[in-house]
Amino acid sequence: MGTEFLKIVEADEAKKIVENLFKECYKIRSENVPIENSYNRVVSEDMHATMDLPPFDKALKDGYAIKSEDSFGTAEENPKILKCIDTVEAGSFSKKTVKKGECIEVSTGTPIPKGTNAIVMVEFSEKLEKSSETININVAILKSVPPNEDIAKKGSDIKKGKLILKKGTALNPVKIGLLSAQGMKNLDVFKKPFVSVISTGNELLNKNEKMEHGKIYDVNTNLIKGTVLSSGGTPITQGIVKDDYDELKTKIITSLKNSDIVICSGGTSAGVGDILKDVIDELGEVLIHGISVKPGKPTLVGKINDKIIIGLPGNPVSAITIYNVFIDPYIRSISGLSGRENSKRKQFRLAKRIHSAKGRMEYLLVEIKNNEVHPIVKDSGAIASLSYADGYTKIPKSVEIIDAGEFVDVSLF
Amino acid sequence: MGTEFLKIVEADEAKKIVENLFKECYKIRSENVPIENSYNRVVSEDMHATMDLPPFDKALKDGYAIKSEDSFGTAEENPKILKCIDTVEAGSFSKKTVKKGECIEVSTGTPIPKGTNAIVMVEFSEKLEKSSETININVAILKSVPPNEDIAKKGSDIKKGKLILKKGTALNPVKIGLLSAQGMKNLDVFKKPFVSVISTGNELLNKNEKMEHGKIYDVNTNLIKGTVLSSGGTPITQGIVKDDYDELKTKIITSLKNSDIVICSGGTSAGVGDILKDVIDELGEVLIHGISVKPGKPTLVGKINDKIIIGLPGNPVSAITIYNVFIDPYIRSISGLSGRENSKRKQFRLAKRIHSAKGRMEYLLVEIKNNEVHPIVKDSGAIASLSYADGYTKIPKSVEIIDAGEFVDVSLF
Repeated sequence: MGTEFLKIVEADEAKKIVENLFKECYKIRSENVPIENSYNRVVSEDMHATMDLPPFDKALKDGYAIKSEDSFGTAEENPKILKCIDTVEAGSFSKKTVKKGECIEVSTGTPIPKGTNAIVMVEFSEKLEKSSETININVAILKSVPPNEDIAKKGSDIKKGKLILKKGTALNPVKIGLLSAQGMKNLDVFKKPFVSVISTGNELLNKNEKMEHGKIYDVNTNLIKGTVLSSGGTPITQGIVKDDYDELKTKIITSLKNSDIVICSGGTSAGVGDILKDVIDELGEVLIHGISVKPGKPTLVGKINDKIIIGLPGNPVSAITIYNVFIDPYIRSISGLSGRENSKRKQFRLAKRIHSAKGRMEYLLVEIKNNEVHPIVKDSGAIASLSYADGYTKIPKSVEIIDAGEFVDVSLF
Repeated sequence: MGTEFLKIVEADEAKKIVENLFKECYKIRSENVPIENSYNRVVSEDMHATMDLPPFDKALKDGYAIKSEDSFGTAEENPKILKCIDTVEAGSFSKKTVKKGECIEVSTGTPIPKGTNAIVMVEFSEKLEKSSETININVAILKSVPPNEDIAKKGSDIKKGKLILKKGTALNPVKIGLLSAQGMKNLDVFKKPFVSVISTGNELLNKNEKMEHGKIYDVNTNLIKGTVLSSGGTPITQGIVKDDYDELKTKIITSLKNSDIVICSGGTSAGVGDILKDVIDELGEVLIHGISVKPGKPTLVGKINDKIIIGLPGNPVSAITIYNVFIDPYIRSISGLSGRENSKRKQFRLAKRIHSAKGRMEYLLVEIKNNEVHPIVKDSGAIASLSYADGYTKIPKSVEIIDAGEFVDVSLF
């Protein structure tokens, strides 16, 4: 039942272990959703056009559909008279076929009548009879137009079968519009993984409990819930459990039933030892017990019945840092969002010199002000630092000092 | 019943009219939500700390709370023996008071016992008796520590009453974490305005209808729904209405009942005239009838019973462009998101020369590839252009040509 050896790993190795664990334990799934509910979802397969657009040769202007050769040689001072044999309003079409010397009145977006191959804009025409009838009147054409003038050919916009959205595309309004134009009813999107969130600690109160001396309000449930949402997952908050082996074990077993990933925080304390590690040891396997980074050394990664279990430090600043560095990229990836990860990383100039302890990779919270990076230097228990943290920067193991003015990479929250 | 005069205005004037209309007709409201449901909402008032954090002087390390003067002069080779009179685990506190020569065992985050003013880390101590009892044993202190060593004072992180979040702050996970630390139960956020979305046109089919010659599937309902969501509003889709005065009038009256803003598209066609304008004229007042921009001249802005009504062009590319330029900023503003508008605008180098018609401001859809702007040149009916449009750029009225290599401002979708 478990090893006493602390499985402490370096940051890069930890990432590799977590990545493999996600690959091994999580089968990427999709679900079919109605198109009107697909906002911000991510398509889980390449999507191809299901029809030609436009679906017919269509008029791009209000005017008259004619045989273009009927207009050749005409001009304002030398009009050509055509007989208008029908009129087509939006949403309908003409069943008639235009012969030499005839035309049909069309409006923008309507199908081109049979026998015609060009549109003369209404501005270059003149009705010669005032009549309540719109057909069988004479119309003067004032301009010569070449074949295909102001006509969009069937399929000229999108050909049926064409790749229109690649797998992994996030559905913004215009992309949903594009699919709507195809009359698509439903589409396959990445299913969001279910992520249980458990806070552990005798000192934790939920928001409905009265403050008592020695206690603090639970931060991590809401903090991790929010980060899971932004990673593309569906959080299931499981509440607070005491530092009690049986209580934590029961809660983890329950949580595993309806979730793909269980994220605990806390569960390590001077008084009670490393109960989360002991529970994982009993139910499954501990893969990482400690990452050699600052802050957040007491991190656990394990698996139980082919599900992923993560133990974050209880301290919120450490928890969010470890989550962002070691967990977020993989939840994003299984949620189909991986392509967007880099957009969150940006270079900024450092406003102040940074000192860092040698020998451990450090993740430092920073604030961005006037396009410069200001390190937030506080003890790692300080929750206030979270209120103005815009992201974090990574200080390599071997670096002790980074001077003001140097560029650093910031991973933005 | 209304004026026949077309109220065509320039782009800047249109923006002013829309801005004033929103100010006049929309009363900014807030609603109270549980903190756990506040992700991505925007706080509608300045928020102040409701309690000191930490709520008590707390230990930053596992170790022994002592009177610091008891440690003066001690070192590894010259330890000082103190009697441990109690032990404090996470979530509890000691009722005892430490006297000279005594100490209390504490763990990280627990309250500092009475009579003590410093922590000696467990690494610099040694229990002198192996005992199942944790109290009344002797402990060797191996280091001299100054007063306040490894103690976070009550309120040192956040003082009760301090401004912690400004009105207009969007709630990301870390900011929700900060509020959770205060034990906050609910908070006031901007209420999302209700925006009805109506598509008008005899040619439009909904996704469940079978394609017929001359018809097209409705794009704008889902397109505008998505953009309203990203502007911070709550869309209410009202479906498709035919180009029929009474049908449109009835739909608008119904929609006005449960929404703050009604956005129609279409409702202008060669066959039936400007029925949306006529409906607004009858029920209320038309403020703008046409904006002198390309694309999207046939735009309507009006008010009915102190509610806002917008008529967008029926063409999706025109509709989304007009929405983004003239409507989005004001819906964002009443949703509390205005501070984030600029983050969507960025400068890029132009990959190809742009030609634009003089005399009308033009909004041109663009694609960003390799950090360069590629104009999307298609007839404005082409829905495919939406599939790769990343945003739009504005070409001033007086500009005919912008050369490749010049920088242009792009408003990103």
